[in-house]
Amino acid sequence: MEKLTIIKVGGKIVEDDASLAQLINDFAAIEGRKILVHGGGRSATKLASELGIETQMVNGRRITDSDMLRVVTMVYGGLVNKNIVAKLQACGVNALGMTGADMDIMRSHKREVKDVDYGFVGDVDACNDDMLSRLIENGVVPVIAPLTHDGRGCLLNTNADTMAGETAKALATHYDVTLIYCFEKKGVLRNADDDDSVIPSINEAEFHRLTEEGVIQGGMIPKLENAFQAIHAGVKRVIITLATAIDGKQGTVITE
Amino acid sequence: MEKLTIIKVGGKIVEDDASLAQLINDFAAIEGRKILVHGGGRSATKLASELGIETQMVNGRRITDSDMLRVVTMVYGGLVNKNIVAKLQACGVNALGMTGADMDIMRSHKREVKDVDYGFVGDVDACNDDMLSRLIENGVVPVIAPLTHDGRGCLLNTNADTMAGETAKALATHYDVTLIYCFEKKGVLRNADDDDSVIPSINEAEFHRLTEEGVIQGGMIPKLENAFQAIHAGVKRVIITLATAIDGKQGTVITE
Repeated sequence: MEKLTIIKVGGKIVEDDASLAQLINDFAAIEGRKILVHGGGRSATKLASELGIETQMVNGRRITDSDMLRVVTMVYGGLVNKNIVAKLQACGVNALGMTGADMDIMRSHKREVKDVDYGFVGDVDACNDDMLSRLIENGVVPVIAPLTHDGRGCLLNTNADTMAGETAKALATHYDVTLIYCFEKKGVLRNADDDDSVIPSINEAEFHRLTEEGVIQGGMIPKLENAFQAIHAGVKRVIITLATAIDGKQGTVITE
Repeated sequence: MEKLTIIKVGGKIVEDDASLAQLINDFAAIEGRKILVHGGGRSATKLASELGIETQMVNGRRITDSDMLRVVTMVYGGLVNKNIVAKLQACGVNALGMTGADMDIMRSHKREVKDVDYGFVGDVDACNDDMLSRLIENGVVPVIAPLTHDGRGCLLNTNADTMAGETAKALATHYDVTLIYCFEKKGVLRNADDDDSVIPSINEAEFHRLTEEGVIQGGMIPKLENAFQAIHAGVKRVIITLATAIDGKQGTVITE
């Protein structure tokens, strides 16, 4: 099977001009088929604040009322996405900015209200691997913003890690997929205070043990859960690494 | 040749919920291959105002400094475009929101400063008919926002009428193209004060005569100039009509 690299980068790297320029260069240098999934939370918070809209986070997730949905639609689907696309085009990468609504590539439903009402937040139902693989076969490089749609005309704010994972899983039947989660640390750390204590590789049993021991905690837990789900669904390699190391040669490799 | 309908709608119709819903229904009902090109100026002005950014217009065109470029990227590429896409998907139209940067479909250069410095405004150089026709052949319906790129990483605010005209011209070699400019009047009017004084059809000689006589003036002049350019470039039909009559059965037909 042909190789496909899916890179997920967080908001921080795409919102600083210097780190964005580095990312664009690094991403352009990746050979073969590829997809970029990006965040943009900091810019959304900044715009919301400029508009006098308060940002509320619960468990690291943004509460998305209709005003905030307008903000994230503008920032994720417009500002961040289109700037990445224009810059990739300048490097000869045939980028196409997309949300889940575009070509219906990712559908979701509004998250049920249990303890918390997250508002217009989507839980993913389906990734349209057929549409995506047709684009990829045509040499197009999808650049995916963290928004999905419910198929009834509503956009929904959606976690970018989840979207990257769902994209990887759906395309695992078509390609030999490597999924790389980039963030601000060198990988999964054994000691949160030591940036160099990267765990080079981790399997699911070790993950559970380290979580119970409290070594792995916070936002790393859902990230690794997504990673293991992807591996179970046929994704070949999942790597968690620094946003300046998107070639996947460093960081933590997730194995079954 | 297969038929292709290109509809251009202004900001006003896409910014009101009721008229947008009507447009979505009408556009979904158009048979065959189609493209939607939209504006969004009023929403841009509204967001700019909320952000304390002053909107400056010269000859009906927006002065686009870097703050305003950020605004139009968010509003045109994000808010307006993605809402249209989600709503069209809900009607079973396989919409794909695009700017000129996406798949490099439209390149431009920053407008030269003569009497006025329009800032980050693009004059179109090239429309990528190959990429667009491949999408269209795959059943995709491009929804185009009024932004282009310069191929060097910069987005540029671009007139939506011009983009619709350039798209029509570029695709005239592939399709039997009908280009429909929708706006707030029933067509080209013989008497600006009488909404029912629609000129049913107009050729270039008549256009020049009526312009000299002052019957045709203001924003209608560049609209008709775009229309005649399109006709000269092989576009089969250009129609100027009401935004509630996008089937092209009313309005003014532009002929050679």
